[in-house]
Amino acid sequence: MATIAIIMGSTSDLPVMQEAIDVLKELNISTEVDIVSAHRTPEKMFEFGKSAHKRGVKAIIAGAGGAAHLPGMVASLSPLPVIGVPVKSSNSIDGWDSVLSILQMPGGVPVATVALNGAKNAGILAAQIVGASDPEVLERIIAYKEGLKEKVIKGAAQVKK
Amino acid sequence: MATIAIIMGSTSDLPVMQEAIDVLKELNISTEVDIVSAHRTPEKMFEFGKSAHKRGVKAIIAGAGGAAHLPGMVASLSPLPVIGVPVKSSNSIDGWDSVLSILQMPGGVPVATVALNGAKNAGILAAQIVGASDPEVLERIIAYKEGLKEKVIKGAAQVKK
Amino acid sequence: MATIAIIMGSTSDLPVMQEAIDVLKELNISTEVDIVSAHRTPEKMFEFGKSAHKRGVKAIIAGAGGAAHLPGMVASLSPLPVIGVPVKSSNSIDGWDSVLSILQMPGGVPVATVALNGAKNAGILAAQIVGASDPEVLERIIAYKEGLKEKVIKGAAQVKK
Amino acid sequence: MATIAIIMGSTSDLPVMQEAIDVLKELNISTEVDIVSAHRTPEKMFEFGKSAHKRGVKAIIAGAGGAAHLPGMVASLSPLPVIGVPVKSSNSIDGWDSVLSILQMPGGVPVATVALNGAKNAGILAAQIVGASDPEVLERIIAYKEGLKEKVIKGAAQVKK
Amino acid sequence: MATIAIIMGSTSDLPVMQEAIDVLKELNISTEVDIVSAHRTPEKMFEFGKSAHKRGVKAIIAGAGGAAHLPGMVASLSPLPVIGVPVKSSNSIDGWDSVLSILQMPGGVPVATVALNGAKNAGILAAQIVGASDPEVLERIIAYKEGLKEKVIKGAAQVKK
Amino acid sequence: MATIAIIMGSTSDLPVMQEAIDVLKELNISTEVDIVSAHRTPEKMFEFGKSAHKRGVKAIIAGAGGAAHLPGMVASLSPLPVIGVPVKSSNSIDGWDSVLSILQMPGGVPVATVALNGAKNAGILAAQIVGASDPEVLERIIAYKEGLKEKVIKGAAQVKK
Amino acid sequence: MATIAIIMGSTSDLPVMQEAIDVLKELNISTEVDIVSAHRTPEKMFEFGKSAHKRGVKAIIAGAGGAAHLPGMVASLSPLPVIGVPVKSSNSIDGWDSVLSILQMPGGVPVATVALNGAKNAGILAAQIVGASDPEVLERIIAYKEGLKEKVIKGAAQVKK
Amino acid sequence: MATIAIIMGSTSDLPVMQEAIDVLKELNISTEVDIVSAHRTPEKMFEFGKSAHKRGVKAIIAGAGGAAHLPGMVASLSPLPVIGVPVKSSNSIDGWDSVLSILQMPGGVPVATVALNGAKNAGILAAQIVGASDPEVLERIIAYKEGLKEKVIKGAAQVKK
Repeated sequence: MATIAIIMGSTSDLPVMQEAIDVLKELNISTEVDIVSAHRTPEKMFEFGKSAHKRGVKAIIAGAGGAAHLPGMVASLSPLPVIGVPVKSSNSIDGWDSVLSILQMPGGVPVATVALNGAKNAGILAAQIVGASDPEVLERIIAYKEGLKEKVIKGAAQVKK
Repeated sequence: MATIAIIMGSTSDLPVMQEAIDVLKELNISTEVDIVSAHRTPEKMFEFGKSAHKRGVKAIIAGAGGAAHLPGMVASLSPLPVIGVPVKSSNSIDGWDSVLSILQMPGGVPVATVALNGAKNAGILAAQIVGASDPEVLERIIAYKEGLKEKVIKGAAQVKK
Repeated sequence: MATIAIIMGSTSDLPVMQEAIDVLKELNISTEVDIVSAHRTPEKMFEFGKSAHKRGVKAIIAGAGGAAHLPGMVASLSPLPVIGVPVKSSNSIDGWDSVLSILQMPGGVPVATVALNGAKNAGILAAQIVGASDPEVLERIIAYKEGLKEKVIKGAAQVKK
Repeated sequence: MATIAIIMGSTSDLPVMQEAIDVLKELNISTEVDIVSAHRTPEKMFEFGKSAHKRGVKAIIAGAGGAAHLPGMVASLSPLPVIGVPVKSSNSIDGWDSVLSILQMPGGVPVATVALNGAKNAGILAAQIVGASDPEVLERIIAYKEGLKEKVIKGAAQVKK
Repeated sequence: MATIAIIMGSTSDLPVMQEAIDVLKELNISTEVDIVSAHRTPEKMFEFGKSAHKRGVKAIIAGAGGAAHLPGMVASLSPLPVIGVPVKSSNSIDGWDSVLSILQMPGGVPVATVALNGAKNAGILAAQIVGASDPEVLERIIAYKEGLKEKVIKGAAQVKK
Repeated sequence: MATIAIIMGSTSDLPVMQEAIDVLKELNISTEVDIVSAHRTPEKMFEFGKSAHKRGVKAIIAGAGGAAHLPGMVASLSPLPVIGVPVKSSNSIDGWDSVLSILQMPGGVPVATVALNGAKNAGILAAQIVGASDPEVLERIIAYKEGLKEKVIKGAAQVKK
Repeated sequence: MATIAIIMGSTSDLPVMQEAIDVLKELNISTEVDIVSAHRTPEKMFEFGKSAHKRGVKAIIAGAGGAAHLPGMVASLSPLPVIGVPVKSSNSIDGWDSVLSILQMPGGVPVATVALNGAKNAGILAAQIVGASDPEVLERIIAYKEGLKEKVIKGAAQVKK
Repeated sequence: MATIAIIMGSTSDLPVMQEAIDVLKELNISTEVDIVSAHRTPEKMFEFGKSAHKRGVKAIIAGAGGAAHLPGMVASLSPLPVIGVPVKSSNSIDGWDSVLSILQMPGGVPVATVALNGAKNAGILAAQIVGASDPEVLERIIAYKEGLKEKVIKGAAQVKK
């Protein structure tokens, strides 16, 4: 049983979405990964959206590009929080289509949208959702943020030299 | 049995979509009209998309605004030509989200997109699709275009006075 | 002790943000509401961001417009999930500044961004975050979505008449 | 006699437009291909637009970039459905000019617009227009979509490994 | 025989285009005005574009909105300088479509584009084209510009009080 | 004495602007070329703008990028028609700044704007301005356009093979 | 002798620019106000830009809309810091032209740009420039910011009731 | 004690920001340089913003990209003039996010924004702020601008050959 499900519309989204997988591994949270295309495998998407919460998944990360309907459609089908990653795919107009077709959901059906190609942040946000009710995971996030700080401080030290 | 199915995501889209209904009536082509929300009634959308071609519908007109997934999802579910009408709804960012989330479909699943709020043109395009194989309807379209010309010529005459 | 904290940069954001308060009330989740300006009360923002998780808050909703730094700065200060609501304020360029300055956060510091003026969806997303670990809240979300469906079906019935 | 006419404004559009030619070949629908420039050969465009439906063409695919007037002008001259392909040509501003000058047609003269560089989808849409009245072609489209599904499922299987 | 021809796609463009007529009257340059729709009266447009230079017209002003093809098509048909006025018509996306579909002409076929709704400047530019070879008209333009200066200086005087 | 003056804000604009020089040479119209920076040599620009029409120049072509003030400022200083070429320089935001700061001139001071990097069209437009009052130049433009047509027809012939 | 010069392209910019005048009055810094149009009174602009620093002005605030050349041209002519206010004038495309033609200055000639219609901030920035070398003015700015904080705290108190 | 403080959100911003350091060195104005991340080292940013004016800094240059909060937050914390440099970082949407999240500050808290990647201009502007009260620095700026002019004139001479 995985805590976070990571899906994407095409294998070509994997290089971007890998960062979500990696950061969740780093934060020691279990994941499942699948290709689910809203437009090419709508039945699979339906089945996935309807069932994820029943097998213990706590949040869904969905990445897609262009007219990106996967995150919003899964949000329509599942009661779980859905995090959308707009992917700047090759057929995208500079990423604007990916961003707007994920972000601008109608009232009633939210998608928690992160930055263009922001799969790492999607992973961290998924961990924060788990951490909202799990003090141990919350601690890991606090530690993770401490680590970010230290990297910046090291960078600053080098610039001053 | 209707020739053209006209669906929209919300009753608030009806004032815009009415123009498609009206022009198809004017061109003497039968229509059915329904509210089908991709995000609020996904099962109904699935059922609609899977069955429309089986009951004799020849083309589908789908209007939606914001992160507008209805036209693309119906195009994913139906083998029929799907005409998408981007609606400039109240929650839209100047219509850009509606346009891009309908237009920028991935390879394999086209949506025939018309102008922002261009429901009249969606109706005419649906008629042209019927007319492609029906000489009588083609004649009606030729006559309709003749009518447009006459209106412009009358307008020109008045401007010259 | 409130479960969800709702903050905004200015009292002028309240008409938009009220929808988040209302939908969380409808879903029976406790809230606290405050005005916290990133640019005019930075110390208060710091204090808020550093302490929210310590008093039992599970998620933060932050709304702001223009160069909207409140959601991102709070996300920088708190380990909790932060939901950002881009507000189309009077000084905004059609909302683009609000959207981009909330959405485009750097790696390491996510903000779960919802649609422009999408405070209702921010409230639902906050409830979903609680529901991810609380089966009773999850049930309420499932029921809420059922209610959305029924409204659409009633609307469809009226259109058919 | 060809069923679908494919025209484009310049030989430099051919690499993009080739995908329409290829997918129609794959779907066993006959095509004719020509270079017709709205701005450099307006008489040829006039002649083409006025006559295509008389020699049995059922739909026209027109691709152009920048201030792309070919699809709209042909739609003005022909009673047939015209599918417009916005080409991201070298003189285009990120494709926005190509998209808007094809999509935003006035009431009365629709162009069925597909995604930027979306010539493959233009071909599929043309086949769907034929299939609307030809059950055998409809079957080929259903089979084509089945093929898309299988590719995604194979991709998913590999990702899971 | 008129020196400048002013055409527009629709009578609804007249309130904007009137400023061109007025300023040319003020500059004592003769005009002819007509409604010529690229999409609804293409034959009239062809006839107009092919013949204007033969009857002594020295420059053409063409206004249109949305997917605005009139200025570019007339430029394709006429050897005269064509001045394009992007009109922010009701079906336009904030004027961007009007601007881009007039401005972004391919190499070989220029349109002298002025600001959105900038019909007054179109009139002045037409006068400047005449003035390039007519010293008396050049003098009138110099005087016109002197007048602009005086208005600003009067305004400045009032602000200082 | 040159008929057309071609100026640009920086030597880095020369590769783009060369096309204007070349096409005017091809059309046998004399040119003068200079670097005039609105922001770095404002006095030179003033002197240039005030004097060009006195030495027989009939039209000015001005190219610049980013916050491109040269075309508009010269239009403010000279009674001659000024053609503006928005250059997509290295410091430009995808060319939007260049286009808007040249195109959107206030009432009274037109700039005849051509496409982004459209220096060739600026040259042709300058020739058309000369041709408006010079039948021989008009003939050359008609011949030039005939040449464009022939190139397209040759391209079409090759595509058909 | 005024410390800050406030200029604008047109009397129609005064309602927006008044906020700069008011906040500088509130901060007890002397101002002079004038209408200076880059395009209609270029000589006056030249004279102004060349002389302001000689009569003791310490910073210039310049507001303009559309293709807004005044701030950049004054920055080219004066060694003083120039603050640019993009005005959303009636002929502007949603303010984008005003913003980009002020902001995107080439290397060597900065304009300190503030938000669209942000004249109040222009006034505060001018005061900060004075305060950089004048401890008393710096104190007034610190007090001004304290005042902003208090307003927010009062607003927060009311929201909590 | 440095006169100008230059900070940036990440070491990856250094190649862009180096131009500010270099031009201030050329103008003989002392600088201090540091990495201060709004999102990863918010405490350091607070400390920096609260103290800079106390140790004699006269203006702050802050560069950041994407959802760029550093310039605005420092402007909120310091009474000094803050110059913002929008950096076109790798995670930016063509620079629009960087520009808008720095430029569009609310009333009361200005950021003096320069062009995208315009660090050189940020340095010159900082020098101009010093020069506003320091006649010797003002002289250096006048000389610097003279140098710009000479480069253009040399370029012009070469083009004429």
